[in-house]
Amino acid sequence: MFPQEVLKDLIVETPSKIVFVVIDGVGGVPIEGKTELEAARKPNLDRIAKEGICGLTIPVSPGITPGSGPGHLALFGYDPLQYQIKRGILEALGLGMEVRGGEVVARGNFATFSEDGRILDRRAQRIPTEENRRLCEKLRKAIPEVQGVKIEIESGKEHRFVVKFSGGGLSDLLTDTDPQKEGLKPLEPSALDERAERMVSVVKEFSRRAREVLKDEYPANGILLRGFSQMPEMPSLYDLYKLKSACIASYPMYKGIARLLGMEILKTEERIGDLFETLRLNFHKEYDFFYVHIKETDSRGEDGDFEGKVRVIEELDRTSSVLFELSPEVIVLCSDHSTPSFLKGHSWHPCPFALRSPYERPDEVTEFTERACSRGALGLFRAVEVMPLVLASALKLKKFGA
Amino acid sequence: MFPQEVLKDLIVETPSKIVFVVIDGVGGVPIEGKTELEAARKPNLDRIAKEGICGLTIPVSPGITPGSGPGHLALFGYDPLQYQIKRGILEALGLGMEVRGGEVVARGNFATFSEDGRILDRRAQRIPTEENRRLCEKLRKAIPEVQGVKIEIESGKEHRFVVKFSGGGLSDLLTDTDPQKEGLKPLEPSALDERAERMVSVVKEFSRRAREVLKDEYPANGILLRGFSQMPEMPSLYDLYKLKSACIASYPMYKGIARLLGMEILKTEERIGDLFETLRLNFHKEYDFFYVHIKETDSRGEDGDFEGKVRVIEELDRTSSVLFELSPEVIVLCSDHSTPSFLKGHSWHPCPFALRSPYERPDEVTEFTERACSRGALGLFRAVEVMPLVLASALKLKKFGA
Repeated sequence: MFPQEVLKDLIVETPSKIVFVVIDGVGGVPIEGKTELEAARKPNLDRIAKEGICGLTIPVSPGITPGSGPGHLALFGYDPLQYQIKRGILEALGLGMEVRGGEVVARGNFATFSEDGRILDRRAQRIPTEENRRLCEKLRKAIPEVQGVKIEIESGKEHRFVVKFSGGGLSDLLTDTDPQKEGLKPLEPSALDERAERMVSVVKEFSRRAREVLKDEYPANGILLRGFSQMPEMPSLYDLYKLKSACIASYPMYKGIARLLGMEILKTEERIGDLFETLRLNFHKEYDFFYVHIKETDSRGEDGDFEGKVRVIEELDRTSSVLFELSPEVIVLCSDHSTPSFLKGHSWHPCPFALRSPYERPDEVTEFTERACSRGALGLFRAVEVMPLVLASALKLKKFGA
Repeated sequence: MFPQEVLKDLIVETPSKIVFVVIDGVGGVPIEGKTELEAARKPNLDRIAKEGICGLTIPVSPGITPGSGPGHLALFGYDPLQYQIKRGILEALGLGMEVRGGEVVARGNFATFSEDGRILDRRAQRIPTEENRRLCEKLRKAIPEVQGVKIEIESGKEHRFVVKFSGGGLSDLLTDTDPQKEGLKPLEPSALDERAERMVSVVKEFSRRAREVLKDEYPANGILLRGFSQMPEMPSLYDLYKLKSACIASYPMYKGIARLLGMEILKTEERIGDLFETLRLNFHKEYDFFYVHIKETDSRGEDGDFEGKVRVIEELDRTSSVLFELSPEVIVLCSDHSTPSFLKGHSWHPCPFALRSPYERPDEVTEFTERACSRGALGLFRAVEVMPLVLASALKLKKFGA
């Protein structure tokens, strides 16, 4: 990849606008000869492919199946091997918590414990989110601090929450209390580095006190913690590209990634049409880069629901007509990884990519599918190369060298 | 390439099986409009291309013609610039010698010397292998050790043998005694590093004593040594990929490479059909990775024998039908480098590649040829990227990152 440091010096600020649509997990593997994209009716997406230039992106490296973190980082031009972000941070950011240098966050589960302290259900029967909120409030009041370390707790969905530890001398180099298995007792956390000893002691006391506070709250009569993590040091999209960027996403984790990269999070309702409506309402504001995240393609892929994924693509297609109306200088359709319903999970398969810009050289691709894009003029290329192309197509990059 | 260290953490062991067929030097350059692959009738190989995903691999780097060592290492996922294996080690391993850390091996030739000590024939008229065996036995008896260093000698074919030096304080940082030219006297070895001084003294005495032992054995009345080498430290295929691997090859050097990577060497007869018969007999054993090496495509290419190479490809095609019968999860057809009969030697040309797996996205390629594969969905990619793809297609890789 072209070095971020050198790219930075080539940036020029211009009023041109970029709409960057990440269709999470849209790529598939054919079932009875067709992928989900090949089975869907999608004239608008096809029009972008036809008027633009196409290719297939390799998310990280051939054969490598990325999680959402590395898949997105690469698309935004960050080498995912250099920037490895732990899930705890993404969850915390996604729930709207601010995380600063030196603070540590962890993912928490409410869980069900037996009288002798064994884990009966790691998810406490997936208690309702409302119940979760009440329990978090109870914990917050009862345990505002442990050994001088401030504790903040944020509810997630069902049994999930995030804890943040703030205070001097903390570290994320410690092991989980969640054994990821039922029938066992929770693990004692242990320091992976001597700098984590204070943190271990705090986590032990916090876990013990939480069990006391929750002892009459069956099935949520205890907690499990995992994925201790600190905020990685990352340049923002403004630092790197001078982009004033906005995120339009409904799922916490994607908002988390966006916050990590310094994007502003726009308030939006959750359906795909709502996301595009939010784009329309904010398009003429000062932003020049809109990250629109479509989650449901991935969710239906994970479910193994081929027809459902086809319907999501068709819904996206119908609502995306607003793109032609707004007509930003650059429209990008891309994906962080494939999620073939055939495999019911993320996969390593390259992702269809289309970029429409008046400054690009259109190719002969007329459809937004895996096979069609594989014949595109951009060929097969790495996702980390996407941002320089996007910036160039928005005329935001100067010449390199004299 | 994706770092081996990170890939290692993504491996999952599964019962899926991979058959990895390396068709040595199969790629060609057209003569009268066709390459050897284009001229051959090969319905089975074409079927694998048609049912799979295809591309062309760059053995090491564009324009670089690899030897068999780097060509193979890259295919197995080892950066050939990082792991440079000297030929001596490959020869020794191929002849079945065990080489341990601290031991040094060298390739030897029986050669013909004039009375004044000049080299008349570097290959001693290519003496018969039987004669070689007798002379090696004579040397073994006469020179079991030199200056406290144990000497082991193993016969190769015709004039070739391998010597192994074992003892403390040895080094391979010394120059050859073989000037690679006739009419000259053998070279005095010299140390490239002070740690090699003991070795230089041992080699000088060994060479002198060998000439005495052989003085009446015209035309094999002396020896030449080259390619001093120690065992490089390399992780095995099990260390890296948790693969229980087996090698089915008839030529020593390829067995040597396989031993270096920790593969088990399966006993086999030599014809191509025999190799596949050995595959059939061992397929249901505990192995999950079978490296099948086809040598004759390279040999006929080296001979400049276009028709002969076409016949070898057709023989391979006929006998390879066993692949469909066994139907492993992953079948790979690949090559370590091209050996166009037009050029009578290894070349830099990319190598046709096909991978069949139920988990891959097939492309539109229907033939296993250089031109057809160049239109495959994998495009032009580096051989070091092959293993991650193969492991992914066998569902042996977890997700990278959250």
